[in-house]
Amino acid sequence: MTFTAAVSGASGYAGGELLRLLANHSDIEIGAITAHSNAGSTLGELQQHLHSLADRVLQETTPEVLAGHDVVFLALPHGASAEIAAQLSAETLVIDAGADHRLQDPAAWEKFYGSPHAGTWPYGLPELPGHRADLVGARRIAVPGCYPTSVLLALTPGFAAGLLEPDDVVIISASGTSGAGKAAKPNLIGSEVMGGMSPYGVGGGHRHTPEMEQGLSLAAGERVSLSFTPTLAPMARGILTTATAKVRRGVGYAQLREAWERAYADEPFVRVLPEGQWPATKSVLGSNHANLQLAFDEHAGRVIVSSVIDNLTKGTAGGAVQSMNIALGLDETAGLTIQGIAP
Amino acid sequence: MTFTAAVSGASGYAGGELLRLLANHSDIEIGAITAHSNAGSTLGELQQHLHSLADRVLQETTPEVLAGHDVVFLALPHGASAEIAAQLSAETLVIDAGADHRLQDPAAWEKFYGSPHAGTWPYGLPELPGHRADLVGARRIAVPGCYPTSVLLALTPGFAAGLLEPDDVVIISASGTSGAGKAAKPNLIGSEVMGGMSPYGVGGGHRHTPEMEQGLSLAAGERVSLSFTPTLAPMARGILTTATAKVRRGVGYAQLREAWERAYADEPFVRVLPEGQWPATKSVLGSNHANLQLAFDEHAGRVIVSSVIDNLTKGTAGGAVQSMNIALGLDETAGLTIQGIAP
Amino acid sequence: MTFTAAVSGASGYAGGELLRLLANHSDIEIGAITAHSNAGSTLGELQQHLHSLADRVLQETTPEVLAGHDVVFLALPHGASAEIAAQLSAETLVIDAGADHRLQDPAAWEKFYGSPHAGTWPYGLPELPGHRADLVGARRIAVPGCYPTSVLLALTPGFAAGLLEPDDVVIISASGTSGAGKAAKPNLIGSEVMGGMSPYGVGGGHRHTPEMEQGLSLAAGERVSLSFTPTLAPMARGILTTATAKVRRGVGYAQLREAWERAYADEPFVRVLPEGQWPATKSVLGSNHANLQLAFDEHAGRVIVSSVIDNLTKGTAGGAVQSMNIALGLDETAGLTIQGIAP
Amino acid sequence: MTFTAAVSGASGYAGGELLRLLANHSDIEIGAITAHSNAGSTLGELQQHLHSLADRVLQETTPEVLAGHDVVFLALPHGASAEIAAQLSAETLVIDAGADHRLQDPAAWEKFYGSPHAGTWPYGLPELPGHRADLVGARRIAVPGCYPTSVLLALTPGFAAGLLEPDDVVIISASGTSGAGKAAKPNLIGSEVMGGMSPYGVGGGHRHTPEMEQGLSLAAGERVSLSFTPTLAPMARGILTTATAKVRRGVGYAQLREAWERAYADEPFVRVLPEGQWPATKSVLGSNHANLQLAFDEHAGRVIVSSVIDNLTKGTAGGAVQSMNIALGLDETAGLTIQGIAP
Repeated sequence: MTFTAAVSGASGYAGGELLRLLANHSDIEIGAITAHSNAGSTLGELQQHLHSLADRVLQETTPEVLAGHDVVFLALPHGASAEIAAQLSAETLVIDAGADHRLQDPAAWEKFYGSPHAGTWPYGLPELPGHRADLVGARRIAVPGCYPTSVLLALTPGFAAGLLEPDDVVIISASGTSGAGKAAKPNLIGSEVMGGMSPYGVGGGHRHTPEMEQGLSLAAGERVSLSFTPTLAPMARGILTTATAKVRRGVGYAQLREAWERAYADEPFVRVLPEGQWPATKSVLGSNHANLQLAFDEHAGRVIVSSVIDNLTKGTAGGAVQSMNIALGLDETAGLTIQGIAP
Repeated sequence: MTFTAAVSGASGYAGGELLRLLANHSDIEIGAITAHSNAGSTLGELQQHLHSLADRVLQETTPEVLAGHDVVFLALPHGASAEIAAQLSAETLVIDAGADHRLQDPAAWEKFYGSPHAGTWPYGLPELPGHRADLVGARRIAVPGCYPTSVLLALTPGFAAGLLEPDDVVIISASGTSGAGKAAKPNLIGSEVMGGMSPYGVGGGHRHTPEMEQGLSLAAGERVSLSFTPTLAPMARGILTTATAKVRRGVGYAQLREAWERAYADEPFVRVLPEGQWPATKSVLGSNHANLQLAFDEHAGRVIVSSVIDNLTKGTAGGAVQSMNIALGLDETAGLTIQGIAP
Repeated sequence: MTFTAAVSGASGYAGGELLRLLANHSDIEIGAITAHSNAGSTLGELQQHLHSLADRVLQETTPEVLAGHDVVFLALPHGASAEIAAQLSAETLVIDAGADHRLQDPAAWEKFYGSPHAGTWPYGLPELPGHRADLVGARRIAVPGCYPTSVLLALTPGFAAGLLEPDDVVIISASGTSGAGKAAKPNLIGSEVMGGMSPYGVGGGHRHTPEMEQGLSLAAGERVSLSFTPTLAPMARGILTTATAKVRRGVGYAQLREAWERAYADEPFVRVLPEGQWPATKSVLGSNHANLQLAFDEHAGRVIVSSVIDNLTKGTAGGAVQSMNIALGLDETAGLTIQGIAP
Repeated sequence: MTFTAAVSGASGYAGGELLRLLANHSDIEIGAITAHSNAGSTLGELQQHLHSLADRVLQETTPEVLAGHDVVFLALPHGASAEIAAQLSAETLVIDAGADHRLQDPAAWEKFYGSPHAGTWPYGLPELPGHRADLVGARRIAVPGCYPTSVLLALTPGFAAGLLEPDDVVIISASGTSGAGKAAKPNLIGSEVMGGMSPYGVGGGHRHTPEMEQGLSLAAGERVSLSFTPTLAPMARGILTTATAKVRRGVGYAQLREAWERAYADEPFVRVLPEGQWPATKSVLGSNHANLQLAFDEHAGRVIVSSVIDNLTKGTAGGAVQSMNIALGLDETAGLTIQGIAP
């Protein structure tokens, strides 16, 4: 049995990555492809890499166009999804790549996004404790932010196992530019980004902060607070997160390693690398995989976890498709790229 | 029915790309994975991106290890394949990514490679006139060089249609660094290549020259001579070829365009882009596709053809798997990545 | 004695490179710094790398602001310089980085730029035969385009020595993105350019074509025609040009080499590399140098010249400052960066 | 009066950067240029960007060759400098880019470097409290490591002003590949590094850790302990450091900002950016500048300081030349590149 899927925001990076994966998904038939300002163009004019879909014509992003599909993917600017989703039937599986339905706390949403809270949907990160069950049979899914995916996969095992202190988590992430989207902003042109790095959103104001604290707090069973600094790297795809947390007194490296390995032992897409191997974003380019490695800096009393994902794949579209598979009762790995493209 | 395949040179870039594609090929079961100097290591230590094959142990590259497979891929240094192939049965489909069996003219081989000619095998570029038929049922295949794949796809239609002058073809190609292999040479370190470009092999000495002239001459039915200059670009994968040839008197743009479109109308992996769209190597990253565009510079009397491929995919491993599919009577597109990974 | 200089278009890449060089020029005192749409901002907000000028406030680009300086550099959009220059005194040395005054033939200008010809000023490429003398005491200078600088330095010696055929010159250049300016265009964002290459302006329509033909024809004493294809490379700065021309019957490598070496023997900024060394754009990053190498492809009957420059330095601002030095009677190398920044 | 300077390790990146700066230093005459394994080669064969020194012939690195110069720069592998320095006169200003003489504590040296401590020389980072005075008239100077330069400039002001807690400092740095030197290691080839990021030396074992703790402890007047994680970025030059430290109770943003601004108010090479401007490594490429910015994450109770330097300039050779200027009584900024090369 195949399911029909509509993809909105098809001219952007998230929409393009969704189409790349769905085109290769034998249980999915791609229906309407929509983009608000490019309706009428062929997909080939906007996403030259999607060869088998080059002649598809983009439609308007309206509830009418999206209706009638089994699955609707929304890859729209923040604030746009709640309204459209409200006009789709309850049977339609609506998967939102935007932030609108990720947070549980309305106050946190309003503080960081400055608009009314649109509600909370099941969170599309099945590797987190308890989350997979919420996705089974779901008809609304909120795809996590890319940085939160990276950070939550990196740290959740230690918090779930009670091995880490909940305060003073320090995280620095480096991301490729596609995380900033396709909009032509002056600071994102090639001449400005190639060959250098720079930080942004420093000091606690990044919108992904409440999302990360939410996930870690759920795992820990107590309130986790963190400092998050994103940096922009001269690469198109990838997130390397270096996440550090204080280790509880008496906990040693062996316990830490065991907790992480146990958390992911049966996960198809997350792997703690063998000791001595360090992760690289290139190894997961285009893949739905996340690779991790941990080290225990006893001198500093902190565990340092390095995680790598592709921000567009596991960080956005791959996570969306994986969650869709669970919701529809399909093989969880269906249609997902396993191997990375390297070099 | 599945076929078993062995892959030698598994620690290199060509071997890695072969494994990436074969792991996703439902008609192929990967057997022995070999590498002459890394036997005993796990594949994960050497090719961190091949997640589903991480625990495979590399074996020695010997005829005994390779025997017993339906297909044997050789991705070895030049000169090594003839000897190993001679010890494999005539029923085994042996696919050589090296240069040893590409050239028809022993004198050209000895001039450019300085060793005795090992013989000529069917040439693994099915899009060239007459070549697909040679691959059906073949049991020996020579995979073209990456630059020749790029150049022959770019120019053959015009020569086959008799529209181009056979002398004074001028070609400049820009390639990503993976074309130079995984060996740690001083001029290939990141600090030396990032942020800049440089030429090499200038002046007619590049080993791919006779291979290109062979293919174009076959298509033209007369001897084609060319000047080829490769340049190294700061990217890991991709070849952008700019190939120019003199247009015969009386031939106009419409005829040129028609010849190219006709040549590739039914080809699953080669596309002449709609007018106004220019090819980009990023659009074929990790994909077995080639995209082309042509322009007629009437002032100069030359057709300029721009072609893009991924040097490791269509230029090496993808071309090998595509040819294997034809030889084994499988769907020609089986196991091959269609969409590029972008951005 | 110091001269005062005003720099317009100070928020762009050419303006920024002019300021970088002038800030280090002991004979120049920087006066007004202007930018049409950023007047009132500090330079530090727009050009973070110009540390010693960070607190300078940008003024409007008007004749009133520019008047009263010994030297006025115009780095404005095409079409803007003629009008402003007309309002500056004849004593002011006006140096135009735009194209408006480069071409001698009004018909060529109108064909490629689609506006009335503004006139012809002395051409700021002193290494070309006869050009240095035109710059001595000049009060109007047209800075060459970056590709023409690269191409003319590459090929002029052979034409001046009568060794090359004037027809069917074929040139392919690869340029860093800064050549496209600072405007935030969708195809120039980092995610679109990093890791790949693509051609543009293919087929004879590139505006630099008449400029290149003009320079080569002047050197040859007869009409030279060429085919030029630019390509975009994933680097911020640099142009690698591969220029090929047919060699006249009877001419050999030794003659070619001698002609090039003789042409540049006394030039401070152009060097033909020792045999066996190939040029790299990284070796001239930030430097006013051009490095060349030639090879004679006897099989193809063509000389292949590879040249590297930094498009913003020798290709724009460095060439402008060098020409200014000549015009003002200063040491030609004053204020100019000699060494490249590598790696 | 000019001083003569010899530069050893001239074929490496540090040696090359020293020569680039010294060639432009009007008080310095470059004498012997040495390299242990390339003696007899011309510099142009190894450092193609040093145009004005292309014909210099490299000599052997021996005390005899180095003797007789006013200044001797050592850019050698670790462990080599003590022996050579011992054979140079006490009047010679010996400046060591290696680590051998940076640490004060022999136990820390032996723990991290595994060899006998060679002694402690004045530390070449004049911006640190009290350090400039030690360099005046010095005849032995230890150039700091690149990461320590980056980290100490970032955090010292807060510790010197007593505003920060000395425990649990967390630092993540991203560095360009030139920091790893010119050796052709498999993990450093372009194909392995371009387009991705990876961590290394994770968990407290990086050799720069004791050097950073030494500098911060000196400033704090008490023992500072930190966790440092380096990561490799796809760029040739640059270090972006994100350093976080806990802020003492009662300290607010205004006090923090005032401490940093006061620390660097009179420094020619270090600048705290205006509020709202974030540093970028591209803005200091090839420059001896360091740019900083700080943010107070009140939620996390930490100050986050972002600093950017060029690892080869301020991080190595620029810092060496700056310290030399102080030692010789020259203008501290002599010969040093101020502006960065951007884009």
